[in-house]
Amino acid sequence: MSVQTASRTANAPLNQHQDPYPTRLARPLDMPWLKRQEAVVKGRDLDGPLDATQLDEFEDKGFLFEPDFLDAEEIEALREELAALLDRDDFRGEEFAVTEPHSQEIRSLFAVHCLSERLRRLAEDPRLTRRVAQILGGESYVHQSRINYKPGFEGQGFAWHSDFETWHAEDGMPAMHAVSASIVLTENHAFNGPLMLIPGSHRVFVPCLGETPEAHHKQSLKRQRFGVPGREALSELIRRGGIEAPTGAAGGLLLFDCNVLHGSNANMSPDPRSNVFFVFNRRDNACVAPYAAKAARPDFLAHRPGSGWSP
Amino acid sequence: MSVQTASRTANAPLNQHQDPYPTRLARPLDMPWLKRQEAVVKGRDLDGPLDATQLDEFEDKGFLFEPDFLDAEEIEALREELAALLDRDDFRGEEFAVTEPHSQEIRSLFAVHCLSERLRRLAEDPRLTRRVAQILGGESYVHQSRINYKPGFEGQGFAWHSDFETWHAEDGMPAMHAVSASIVLTENHAFNGPLMLIPGSHRVFVPCLGETPEAHHKQSLKRQRFGVPGREALSELIRRGGIEAPTGAAGGLLLFDCNVLHGSNANMSPDPRSNVFFVFNRRDNACVAPYAAKAARPDFLAHRPGSGWSP
Repeated sequence: MSVQTASRTANAPLNQHQDPYPTRLARPLDMPWLKRQEAVVKGRDLDGPLDATQLDEFEDKGFLFEPDFLDAEEIEALREELAALLDRDDFRGEEFAVTEPHSQEIRSLFAVHCLSERLRRLAEDPRLTRRVAQILGGESYVHQSRINYKPGFEGQGFAWHSDFETWHAEDGMPAMHAVSASIVLTENHAFNGPLMLIPGSHRVFVPCLGETPEAHHKQSLKRQRFGVPGREALSELIRRGGIEAPTGAAGGLLLFDCNVLHGSNANMSPDPRSNVFFVFNRRDNACVAPYAAKAARPDFLAHRPGSGWSP
Repeated sequence: MSVQTASRTANAPLNQHQDPYPTRLARPLDMPWLKRQEAVVKGRDLDGPLDATQLDEFEDKGFLFEPDFLDAEEIEALREELAALLDRDDFRGEEFAVTEPHSQEIRSLFAVHCLSERLRRLAEDPRLTRRVAQILGGESYVHQSRINYKPGFEGQGFAWHSDFETWHAEDGMPAMHAVSASIVLTENHAFNGPLMLIPGSHRVFVPCLGETPEAHHKQSLKRQRFGVPGREALSELIRRGGIEAPTGAAGGLLLFDCNVLHGSNANMSPDPRSNVFFVFNRRDNACVAPYAAKAARPDFLAHRPGSGWSP
């Protein structure tokens, strides 16, 4: 762990009293959720690939799916890159390489824009960064990157959660000025555990119960037990917005707000599910001390602007 | 456990050498599966509610879904009966009342046609028994009955399996002359863990690896680890037949062959999923000694013709 992480930890004030997004609480608040403070789409004045209808849809639902974002040649090149990265023996056992709960298969590899020149170029591709700027309303950096590989029959699901809840609590991300970009490299269908989202859930913040355990990320990346919203809030948000699971051919791009609730089910099919995932955070929203954890998570999970992480 | 169970156990020959369906093996066979010996639809000459097209569909896929089998009044009465049965304090802790792996909620209640007069009448309802006779080609009895309740957010999934594989191995069911009838009492949709089936998989028997542990049912009803087909066979059967998940309003009837591979995913929605489930076995196919287990399972899991089980 670097010196920078240590300094972020040293004077970590658990500044929950001025925090509009308190979470990891000892007891429930009186209300099921709190109002979101930030606008959702903040760069409507910027030129970019997304038109007004697409920005409206993102604002309304908290996500936008664009089929055919990549062409067949790009998909194939990325698949080869993924296979090569997941096959790297020197990554196995490293903290940034996360395996399935019941096997030694690599499930997620983090910090991939630092591990692969091709993925660094993809993270900086103007087709992505211009879309991101239209949503965030300013310059961004990569807060987190990863590739996910959910093997046939084996991939476990993820419980419903807001990424922002974790990034705020455990990484010290101050406000909701981040957006995730997930590019699917395999066909997504109803039976291979596609990402499910709750449209409209990004407009509220659902505080979660339970103090963050130390080194929580070591198990939360496998199976999340803290940072999971309560069932009453979930039920009401699903009653209002429903559940959507964008499916389609490889090469689609899903942009989703940092605070939209999402989850996934297990992969019941023989087909693997893999994707490339970048989180773009606005530069003026760089992380401070964690809001609800004793120490910040390692850099490979939460990069800083301009930091050059290497394994 | 009754005297009858003891006598089935006493002279249990592990008669695997003449068995066309060997399973729970120490090592894989040379082939991924074995041919089914029995016809699928055996009562085409009998009068009944199913027409030739429906029988063809059952024969082809291994299952048939009929929406609107029950009317609204019947559904409501059954729901009340379910709620009353799942609420019985005297059932909690009994072996025939199975709870979720991580909670004390009752997930399945077995032998319900012996616990409830209304469910006994439903099991004997000619709308069911006549359909069953058209498929099995003869008189049947209830081999197993249960109600399942999969609560919102909480219900776990089931891995792919053939029921016949378990009934043959652990209950001593000789041949494929059984059919299951599942009546859904809640709407089934894509996100509340509906039953998934592999069309056409009923035509082959996939032997499973691993010797049956003693008292296997005590954990297999919560999470199955033996009697799970291999991934290569599953992949190939899914490649040929795909996966289907019949969804629809409450009151639908799913009839499925004892050997069709099926499973389910977790319930990601707030909506519970409940159903009533009867297994009809042809009278001349009554169980003998288990084919791949040291002792037969308790009577509440595997009734005999004419037996009057009570808790």
